Amino acid sequence: MKTAIVTIGDEILIGQIVDTNSSWMAQKMTLAGFEIEEKVAIGDDAQQIKNTIDDVFQRVDVILMTGGLGPTKDDITKKTLCDYFGTSLVFDDTVLENINNVITNITSLNELTRNQAYVPMDCTVIQNKVGTAPITWFDYKDKVLVSLPGVPYEMKYVMECEIIPRLKAKYETVSYVNKVLIVGGYTESALAIHLTDFENDLPEGFGLAYLPSLGLMKLRLFVKGEHRRPELDAQVKKLEDLLGEAILAEKDISIEKILGEHLFEKGLTLATAESCTGGNIAHLITSVAGSSRYFKGSIVSYANEVKVNMLNVSQQSLDQFGAVSETIVIEMAKGVQKALNVDCAIAVSGIAGPDGGTDEKPVGTVWICTMYKNKCLSRKYQLGKYRESNIMRATNIGMLQLLEIL
Amino acid sequence: MKTAIVTIGDEILIGQIVDTNSSWMAQKMTLAGFEIEEKVAIGDDAQQIKNTIDDVFQRVDVILMTGGLGPTKDDITKKTLCDYFGTSLVFDDTVLENINNVITNITSLNELTRNQAYVPMDCTVIQNKVGTAPITWFDYKDKVLVSLPGVPYEMKYVMECEIIPRLKAKYETVSYVNKVLIVGGYTESALAIHLTDFENDLPEGFGLAYLPSLGLMKLRLFVKGEHRRPELDAQVKKLEDLLGEAILAEKDISIEKILGEHLFEKGLTLATAESCTGGNIAHLITSVAGSSRYFKGSIVSYANEVKVNMLNVSQQSLDQFGAVSETIVIEMAKGVQKALNVDCAIAVSGIAGPDGGTDEKPVGTVWICTMYKNKCLSRKYQLGKYRESNIMRATNIGMLQLLEIL
Repeated sequence: MKTAIVTIGDEILIGQIVDTNSSWMAQKMTLAGFEIEEKVAIGDDAQQIKNTIDDVFQRVDVILMTGGLGPTKDDITKKTLCDYFGTSLVFDDTVLENINNVITNITSLNELTRNQAYVPMDCTVIQNKVGTAPITWFDYKDKVLVSLPGVPYEMKYVMECEIIPRLKAKYETVSYVNKVLIVGGYTESALAIHLTDFENDLPEGFGLAYLPSLGLMKLRLFVKGEHRRPELDAQVKKLEDLLGEAILAEKDISIEKILGEHLFEKGLTLATAESCTGGNIAHLITSVAGSSRYFKGSIVSYANEVKVNMLNVSQQSLDQFGAVSETIVIEMAKGVQKALNVDCAIAVSGIAGPDGGTDEKPVGTVWICTMYKNKCLSRKYQLGKYRESNIMRATNIGMLQLLEIL
Repeated sequence: MKTAIVTIGDEILIGQIVDTNSSWMAQKMTLAGFEIEEKVAIGDDAQQIKNTIDDVFQRVDVILMTGGLGPTKDDITKKTLCDYFGTSLVFDDTVLENINNVITNITSLNELTRNQAYVPMDCTVIQNKVGTAPITWFDYKDKVLVSLPGVPYEMKYVMECEIIPRLKAKYETVSYVNKVLIVGGYTESALAIHLTDFENDLPEGFGLAYLPSLGLMKLRLFVKGEHRRPELDAQVKKLEDLLGEAILAEKDISIEKILGEHLFEKGLTLATAESCTGGNIAHLITSVAGSSRYFKGSIVSYANEVKVNMLNVSQQSLDQFGAVSETIVIEMAKGVQKALNVDCAIAVSGIAGPDGGTDEKPVGTVWICTMYKNKCLSRKYQLGKYRESNIMRATNIGMLQLLEIL
C-alpha cells in the first residue's frame, strides 16, 4: 500500500508558513509500517486539487490530504471533494453536537462555525474532538482519500487516534526496520570514508543514510521486513565497533533529550548562562517533558551589565578581554553554577551577526564553556555568517560540549 | 512562467527532517514575482526522480530541485540528472578550486569531497561559494531545471545571489501585489464574520486569505499586477477602518519583530522572567538582529528556588498560592524588572504539560504578567493539552500582552 500526502493551501505554497504537518505525518506513517511515496503541496484552487488527485491516484492507494477546511471563503477543500466524488453537502447533527462540545469553553457558536457541520453525503465522517472541522474519509474504487484539518494539533490528534488505526485495520503493513545512530565529531564526508568498507559489505537490501544536522550526524541504517532484524542488529554491532564513543545515542532523539537523559540518570542538575544564544539552549532543554527534574534555569545575560550583576562577571575582565572571550565564558559558567546552585553549566558568548563583527572577532566567533562540578572545558568556535544558524549551531555545540565532559 | 520546487531525499519523505527549504524558496520566488505551481517531495530513487521530472515538466517551465548532492552513497541526484539529460560527468578544475577555497578553514580535502568536482558535461555550472556541492543549471528544450544543495544556508545563499537574478534575466515576472495585516483579538471565524461585507465587496481578482497562528491572525490581501496597487491601497484603508487597533502590524512580520520595533522606537528596555516558556520568549526576541538595543536578558526560573533567589519571589507566596498563580507572576515581573533594571517585563508561569496538572490547575493553565514601568497587567489563560503548542502560545500571548499596555 502506497501513500501520498497532499497539502492544500496558498500559504504553504507561497512559503508564508512552513509545512511541519507533512513531516510529522510521514514519520508516523513510516513508523506504523506504511510507505510514503510522495508529498505534494498545491494551492487553494479547485481545478488543481482535482487534477492532483487524479494524477497522484495513478501512483498511490491512499491520499492523506490536509488543509482548506477552515470556516472562511478561501477554504475550498470540502466543496471541491464533493465535486470530485460526485456528491453533495448535507447538514450533520452529530457534527454540530461535536462542534458545540469543542467550542464550549472558548467562544460561542457563530454562523461560519455552524457551517462546519455540513459534510459530503457519500463519505465516512470522523469527529474532530479537538477542533470544529470534521474529518472525511472517502472510499473510491479501490482507493482511499482522507481529508484532514491543517491545524497541527487537530491533525495530530486525528491521525493518531483515528486515521492510523483505521488504515492498519484495512491494509497490511510491511515496515522497514531502522536503527538511528547519533554520531558526534565527524563531518559527513569523513564519516562516509571511515565507513566505506562497512557500506560496501552491507547485505542485499540494506541502506545507510547520512543526515547532517548542525554539529551532529544522524546515521540511519534500514532494511525492509521485520524478519531481517537480527541482521540489522549484527550490522549495528559492527557500527558500534567502528565508531565507539563517537556514538552519542542509538535512537533518533535530539541532543537535548540525550543530554537530559544523561543528567537525569546521573542525578545531576544543570543551568545555562547565555549571551548570543539568547535563551535557546534553555528553550530546547525545557521543550523536553520532565526537564524540571534536572534543569533549574538560565540567566540570559544579553547585556553586559546583566553579566556583571547576575553572574558576577568582573567588569575589569569585560573591559580587558571583551564579552566574547575565554575569560568571560568561564566567569559566566562559574557564575551561573554558583548562583543557581547546580552541578553542571553551559555558558555561551559570541557574535551571532549580522552586525557586531570585527577583524579580530568576526561574525560567527563563539566561546563556549561547559562545567561539570570542578571540571571546566572552554573552547572557541568559528561558525558562519548567518545569525539563525549561528544561534542553532552554538546551541547544539554547547550541549555536545557538556556531554563531552560528563 | 510557472515553477515547481522538487525536494529529493528519503529523510524529508519519511519525515525525519522538516522541509524548511521549500517554504523559504517559495517565499523568495513569490516576492520576486514568480508563480509557484506546486511543491513535491520524493525519495532518493533514480526512477522516481526521472518520472517526477517528466510529470512536473508537463505543468511548469522551471524546476528548482534541492537535495541529494552530498558526497555520500545515498546522494544520487547528480548521476540521475546525467542519465535524464543524456550527458556524463566530467572533472571540473574550477569547481575543485572553489571547494578548496570553501574548506580551507574547516577540514582538509578528502577523496569524497574531491569527487564533488565531477559535474555533468552539458549544463551550466554555478559555483557554490559556501559549500562543496556545485549548482547545475540545465536548459532543456524550452524548460529549465536547476539542481541545488539541500543544506539550508548553502541553498539560501545560492538562490539569492545566483538563481533568482538569472531567472529574472530570463523570464518576465508579473507579481502579485500583497498586503499582510497582523490582527490580534479575533478567532478566524469571528474575524471572517466581521469582514463578510468587506469580502463580498472586493473588486474582481482580489483575494483575502486568513492565516491563524497561535494567538494571532494574519490577513493577506492580494491581487495580480503592480498596476492594481492603488486599488489594493484603497482596500487596505477600508480594512484599517474596520479593524482599528486590532491591527498590530501592516506587514508580514513576527510578533517578536513588532514588539522589538515598538520598544526600539520608544527607547524602552525589556527583560523576561520565564518559567513554563523556559527561555523561548528570550530566544524569539533575540532571534531578531539588533535586539540588543532593547533586550537586556532573562531569568529563566524553572526551579522555584531560582524564583526566590534570583527574582526575589517570596517563599511564603509560593507556599500559599503555588508557582502558577497571579501573585507569583506579578512578583516575577517586578523581580526581573528590578534585577535587570529595565522599563518593561514579561513574566510567565504555567503548566505546559503533559504532567503537573491538577483539578484546580489543569495542564494548559498559564499566568502571564506584563509590566511597563508602573503599569501592570496580569491575566490567566487556559491553553491546551500539548506541551509544544502551550509553550508557543504562552510565548506569543506574553508578547501580545506587553504590546497591549505599551
